[in-house]
Amino acid sequence: IDRLLGLVRVPQMQHVGVLVDNSKNLRDLTAAAQNIETSFHQPLSIYLEVDAGQGRCGVPPPPKSDQALQLARAITSVSGDQIRFGGIHCYQGILQHIRDPEARRSAVMDGPVKAARDTVKLLAENGINVPVVTGAGTGTYLFECEGGVHTEIQPGSFAFMDADYGANTGMPSFQQSLFVLSTVISKPEPGRIICDAGTKAVDQLSGPPSVFSLPMEGNAAPCKFNMEYRCGGDEHGILVGEDTSKLDVGDKLLLQPSHCDPTVNLYDSIHYIRDFNGPSVDTVFDIEARGPGT
Amino acid sequence: IDRLLGLVRVPQMQHVGVLVDNSKNLRDLTAAAQNIETSFHQPLSIYLEVDAGQGRCGVPPPPKSDQALQLARAITSVSGDQIRFGGIHCYQGILQHIRDPEARRSAVMDGPVKAARDTVKLLAENGINVPVVTGAGTGTYLFECEGGVHTEIQPGSFAFMDADYGANTGMPSFQQSLFVLSTVISKPEPGRIICDAGTKAVDQLSGPPSVFSLPMEGNAAPCKFNMEYRCGGDEHGILVGEDTSKLDVGDKLLLQPSHCDPTVNLYDSIHYIRDFNGPSVDTVFDIEARGPGT
Repeated sequence: IDRLLGLVRVPQMQHVGVLVDNSKNLRDLTAAAQNIETSFHQPLSIYLEVDAGQGRCGVPPPPKSDQALQLARAITSVSGDQIRFGGIHCYQGILQHIRDPEARRSAVMDGPVKAARDTVKLLAENGINVPVVTGAGTGTYLFECEGGVHTEIQPGSFAFMDADYGANTGMPSFQQSLFVLSTVISKPEPGRIICDAGTKAVDQLSGPPSVFSLPMEGNAAPCKFNMEYRCGGDEHGILVGEDTSKLDVGDKLLLQPSHCDPTVNLYDSIHYIRDFNGPSVDTVFDIEARGPGT
Repeated sequence: IDRLLGLVRVPQMQHVGVLVDNSKNLRDLTAAAQNIETSFHQPLSIYLEVDAGQGRCGVPPPPKSDQALQLARAITSVSGDQIRFGGIHCYQGILQHIRDPEARRSAVMDGPVKAARDTVKLLAENGINVPVVTGAGTGTYLFECEGGVHTEIQPGSFAFMDADYGANTGMPSFQQSLFVLSTVISKPEPGRIICDAGTKAVDQLSGPPSVFSLPMEGNAAPCKFNMEYRCGGDEHGILVGEDTSKLDVGDKLLLQPSHCDPTVNLYDSIHYIRDFNGPSVDTVFDIEARGPGT
């Protein structure tokens, strides 16, 4: 709460919102927010988090229980100069990775769209207007839009994409832009090479990375190698397959992570390359929000 | 190679060693090492890496092939003021986590100990003395010592331990000293709470973390909670079990990682606490070697 209120106190910060699913947490926030100087920005927006089926945070949606109504009433009752009711947050992370688009669509309609619609309806029946319904991710945002109840979408992974999103079908055509640069450090026998990127370099909880070449002269995009990455521990990757014959010790390769978020989290900076065949690194972006909770 | 030679050029650096399993790499190192100014320290030590069965880096051990002899000859032939033959490196990472101590012992004797012994014998028969045989980790070092051929051991995880080593039996009695501090952020229903530590906060490739309390008054050690951690995505942990009733939103808990290396790698610093009941943080250590290859 102290860190959150630190954000609110930054003069340039026009809008700060926080999710709440618990009355004790709301009381703590309300008490702490009393001293916010709101003359230079908007009040702290409190969004009611509704569980859309993942069993993570969030109050259960109606008609299962009326907790959403109770908590929304509590939020609106403390609304004023320091706090306002921002709306509801209704997001389901696991649905992003359902492969088949029709199955993904149905799961969105039965999950976050239904939960959001039922909550908005219950609150409206009790005189509470919901300013914003926020949610959706890169895998499902078209379906939340189609559902018609969400008024704000939150896709983020589209900027990088990853092999997990690449395995979905019927996706909007975002291209892969995130790769881990690695070097071949050993070639112990034909058909097997070792690179210097292990679990500390690329997320493997969502599966092994795919292996790509550096783009060749005159070819702007990396090409997929016919080789399989196997985990070689914290610092090594074991690559097997026929294309290993094309690489020698010292050669570079690109790994396409299976999951972008926990891969980016491993690094302090990202090197942005506009054109692999042109001048090398265009910009270096620091990863400032790296860390456990960001 | 440039970074390695940068290390060698640090005046305080008395001894720098590097593993080699490839003649091209040896030639590149030899060429680059020609300009090392060795008047202020020892020559660069080149260790021959022998594959002890993991199928990662390393030449195959004899009698499977004589690559070890060929490469050792190549190393000794370029030895001089800049380079010297340091010995052999014979380590098998996967064996560290064989649960049963007798099975672990046998695997060490059949793996790194046999590979090292056969290599030392072949080299000795050909007039090459092996100054150092290095290898072993926290799970097996007693067995490499017992094997009698290793002259240097490399355990590291013993300083922290983790749940993966905790699942081994017959281990030397090192205590767990590494925990991730997390906060309960939601309590949506009885028997389930949510904490703010997901895959960005604690390695889960080796399995979910175990959950501990902060040490109680007068009790120096954390106590294990009867609750199960389930992955809640990049930023959340879902905790289920009867002890969830003991915690409320805002309460702290400790997660014992399943694997210490890729968990430490997620952070910029470690907070060392000598006594949970005494003055809080004793020292903050920066994690300087954080990153993909370190």
